[in-house]
Amino acid sequence: MTRLFNDPAEFADEVLDGFVAAHQRWVRRVRGGVVRNSAKTPGQVAVLVGGGSGHYPAFTGLVGQGLAHGSVPGNIFASPSAQQACSVAKAAESGGGVLLLFGNYAGDVLHFGHAAEILTRQGIPAKAFAVTDDVSSANADEAAKRRGVAGGLTVFKAAAAAAEAGLSLEEVYRVAERANARTRSLGVAFSGCTLPGADAPLFTVPEGKMAVGMGIHGEPGIQEADVPSADGLAELFVSTLLTDLPSDITDVRGQRAAVILNGLGTVKHEELFVVYRRVARLLAEAGVEVVEPEVGEFVTSFDLAGASLTLSWLDEELERYWTAPADAPAFRKGSLTPAPPAPEDLAEGSVEQTVREASEQSRAAAGVVLAALEAAREVIDGNADELGRIDAVAGDGDHGIGMQRGAVAAVDAAREALERGAGAGTLLALAGDAWADKAGGTSGALWGLLLHGIANTLGDNEKPTAETVSQGVAAGLESVLRVGGAKVGDKTMVDVLVPFAETLAAGTAESNRLAEAWGRAAERAEAAARATADLVPRIGRARPLADKSVGTPDAGAVSLALIAGVVHGVLDERKGV
Amino acid sequence: MTRLFNDPAEFADEVLDGFVAAHQRWVRRVRGGVVRNSAKTPGQVAVLVGGGSGHYPAFTGLVGQGLAHGSVPGNIFASPSAQQACSVAKAAESGGGVLLLFGNYAGDVLHFGHAAEILTRQGIPAKAFAVTDDVSSANADEAAKRRGVAGGLTVFKAAAAAAEAGLSLEEVYRVAERANARTRSLGVAFSGCTLPGADAPLFTVPEGKMAVGMGIHGEPGIQEADVPSADGLAELFVSTLLTDLPSDITDVRGQRAAVILNGLGTVKHEELFVVYRRVARLLAEAGVEVVEPEVGEFVTSFDLAGASLTLSWLDEELERYWTAPADAPAFRKGSLTPAPPAPEDLAEGSVEQTVREASEQSRAAAGVVLAALEAAREVIDGNADELGRIDAVAGDGDHGIGMQRGAVAAVDAAREALERGAGAGTLLALAGDAWADKAGGTSGALWGLLLHGIANTLGDNEKPTAETVSQGVAAGLESVLRVGGAKVGDKTMVDVLVPFAETLAAGTAESNRLAEAWGRAAERAEAAARATADLVPRIGRARPLADKSVGTPDAGAVSLALIAGVVHGVLDERKGV
Repeated sequence: MTRLFNDPAEFADEVLDGFVAAHQRWVRRVRGGVVRNSAKTPGQVAVLVGGGSGHYPAFTGLVGQGLAHGSVPGNIFASPSAQQACSVAKAAESGGGVLLLFGNYAGDVLHFGHAAEILTRQGIPAKAFAVTDDVSSANADEAAKRRGVAGGLTVFKAAAAAAEAGLSLEEVYRVAERANARTRSLGVAFSGCTLPGADAPLFTVPEGKMAVGMGIHGEPGIQEADVPSADGLAELFVSTLLTDLPSDITDVRGQRAAVILNGLGTVKHEELFVVYRRVARLLAEAGVEVVEPEVGEFVTSFDLAGASLTLSWLDEELERYWTAPADAPAFRKGSLTPAPPAPEDLAEGSVEQTVREASEQSRAAAGVVLAALEAAREVIDGNADELGRIDAVAGDGDHGIGMQRGAVAAVDAAREALERGAGAGTLLALAGDAWADKAGGTSGALWGLLLHGIANTLGDNEKPTAETVSQGVAAGLESVLRVGGAKVGDKTMVDVLVPFAETLAAGTAESNRLAEAWGRAAERAEAAARATADLVPRIGRARPLADKSVGTPDAGAVSLALIAGVVHGVLDERKGV
Repeated sequence: MTRLFNDPAEFADEVLDGFVAAHQRWVRRVRGGVVRNSAKTPGQVAVLVGGGSGHYPAFTGLVGQGLAHGSVPGNIFASPSAQQACSVAKAAESGGGVLLLFGNYAGDVLHFGHAAEILTRQGIPAKAFAVTDDVSSANADEAAKRRGVAGGLTVFKAAAAAAEAGLSLEEVYRVAERANARTRSLGVAFSGCTLPGADAPLFTVPEGKMAVGMGIHGEPGIQEADVPSADGLAELFVSTLLTDLPSDITDVRGQRAAVILNGLGTVKHEELFVVYRRVARLLAEAGVEVVEPEVGEFVTSFDLAGASLTLSWLDEELERYWTAPADAPAFRKGSLTPAPPAPEDLAEGSVEQTVREASEQSRAAAGVVLAALEAAREVIDGNADELGRIDAVAGDGDHGIGMQRGAVAAVDAAREALERGAGAGTLLALAGDAWADKAGGTSGALWGLLLHGIANTLGDNEKPTAETVSQGVAAGLESVLRVGGAKVGDKTMVDVLVPFAETLAAGTAESNRLAEAWGRAAERAEAAARATADLVPRIGRARPLADKSVGTPDAGAVSLALIAGVVHGVLDERKGV
């Protein structure tokens, strides 16, 4: 049970406030996250770590000399935005480029990947790398699909020590890749975690049982077993990890490994030590030389009762990086000479927004787009509680809040863009960036992509037509399908977006009347949203579902249908434009 | 829920094994606990910390350069023995004397105080000091009665840094005293902890409620309140601690303080940061300058959901010690030059046991004493489960195990002493030491005192008589009353020991027949043990009671009556001797 919070919606922000207040010796807050509070080394690669909040010490606890240069924390269990990552990167970088490190989760891959593209385009060489250490989340032959869990620490540590040693961005990236390729984790859970303000755990494990391989957000495990003895758990951990070896290790005898025994929240220090006692013996029996093991909390999930073991197989280079000194709030090792403090006026990064020249026709159309966005914001505002309620049935209930934040930010950005003379394309692109930045999570990123898809097709010169709008929606749909990975029937916004785009395309092929075609597509969208109630609910990334979710429409599908409907009103009203 | 363990009886030992296996860079195991793994500085005061296990990182996590020289962990929530403390002290000391630091709990005060006496007698100057930072455990005018909680860290840190700075034992003691006098903590609990192997929590707090001032073992708090917001808890903490100031501070404005926000187990990092955010603001508003705050887990109690705030008011000297570098497994600060490793053959301490010359009569009597101890061991063996069951009604259920361990150790020590020609007095004294050492906890210490009381009166020369035995029991009773602090009616072994000693004294005054007088006293003891079931249960040190304990006899009372009865059988059989 998570009991101590104020407004749950502000929780992640307040965590960051308190964390920074307690650790001013190490970090300072910048827009989007935190960076080291010590002076930069010119030309050094900046290593940034990030991902959803709620996993302390991952990720902000790892910022400091010898470890990360900055951290980009998202909302609770939700990825941060690309805009946040760009902002923190600009505050942290010192001429050597930026490496973004995070666990392999759809939202994180999406946002950090996007951030690396933006930074590179803006003249700051940047790369993004996803950690994939969780052996239970995919088979060895699909290792790239594995999730990232506590093993991230060894990857972050290796990359950061390589950066500290003066290696280039390409070389630091190579070190991260090699550390990741040689790192394996297995986790178990005994009970779920409760998010701030929630009445019940996000997921549960039957009393007396253990979910083997369950992820740190409650992602389904590979099997359920009785809770073993401490020795029994150690045996499960070690035997599993000794049979899932990096391709270049055939015999573990004589190998050296960094070992992390991690508690996820409610499995406490004493229990971990009793388990470690047996882990150490089993590894010694197998002939593995353990190098500077860590037993404690490195990746948590609030009060989740669970633990994981990580083995990170070392070569000479990786061992040098693993044992290098570090001084971060939650991870200190060895002894290093403190760097001088950073100057007070450390420039905070901001993403330059340029407004390209636009035709008069496109600027007029931009006014209609703004009106449509305002209408979308109003309908989301009026339904935010209901969207939250629907989302809470199978999810974490934050869909209404996320959509509200996204729509408000999009309207603000669009209004400013219109004042600066933006055409329809640029206005939509800036609105999409703002939406993704403020809404957070995967759905925020998908709405950003959808608006960008339309923006790219409309451009800033031509007068938008029924055909170009329809092509834009199709382009947006394609991005959403490619990046989001959901199919029709998975009970997501895709169930609405696909029939909507099809109907819109069919209608605009028949005639050039956008409002009419949009109206039919919006009706189809509403029906499709209702139909998601009849679908077998999908297994959410961050939450195994409750049975009670059957019969409730998907919140993302409902919000898309609502927006499609209200935008039809705007188009209908302004159909002369 | 504590889920990961093997044999619950071996839990504390296995924790220590695993802890040492994971932290060989810092510590090595010695008989009775752990000491630093780095070379000693000749003439430096050795600072030892200790107390019951189950509070990691207190106490073993605090052993390392700049912090403790060694740690003496007891069984779960039970104080270690004086013998353990002596052994660790001998391994840690380097000619400058020893300071033993611990929280103010009866068992710890007893055992560490006894250890300081033994060490001093053996030529190693030693002092014992109990931390008393918990403001809710007694009023300010009885500050010496307060319990020690998370504020112990600032006291340990100050004393250790003073030792590191080369101060004398007297000076290091003065620093500990001053740091303690300026340190205040307040804790709250939302739910209890479950000990390894137990089916249910040791205590509970009603759902939605908070026990203000509850101790780290569930000692009753000062009031029950609704669970507040994070800000509300910060306000309660700060407002309480700002009105319980050291006598030499009248205005906090401009004062400097070390601040520790401690999570007790299940209140997690993120929640602590949200609380700390407000704590930092409130202290700033009050004009208090916070120096190197710590937010995390410093004293835990398994999965107890609770938190505490500590303010330690600094002067120039204390601030220097608080900010001095340290490198222990669970507390690292600043940067220090690593000391060279300790030599492999670090001598472990052992307490020399001498057997004085004895008369033939006393050696013959020693044989009867051994037979009595063997009978005691057997009756305890046969009733251990039942004693555990009775103890579990209101306590933690370990009474049977503790008595078993104590009695086995006492018989072994007595047998060895008899082989070495010991008289009745020395045999009983060695048996008492062994009992206290192995049984652990307060009751182990009290049994040790009781046997020592009899031992001192019997000596090794005279033939024991009914009168000397009765005087010995009376002397033992006096020690138990003085040290244990319980009165008749508190539902403890004292309820049996007092009428037993009275009846024995009356009987031996009438005639010189020990077996007969003992028999009547044993009958009285049995009745008294039964009568404890009718008493209002006492409030245990380590556990608020369940109502269901009414109607159950006290386990300590029952075991004393059992032993009195079976010893009567031995005396009766051998009454010729």
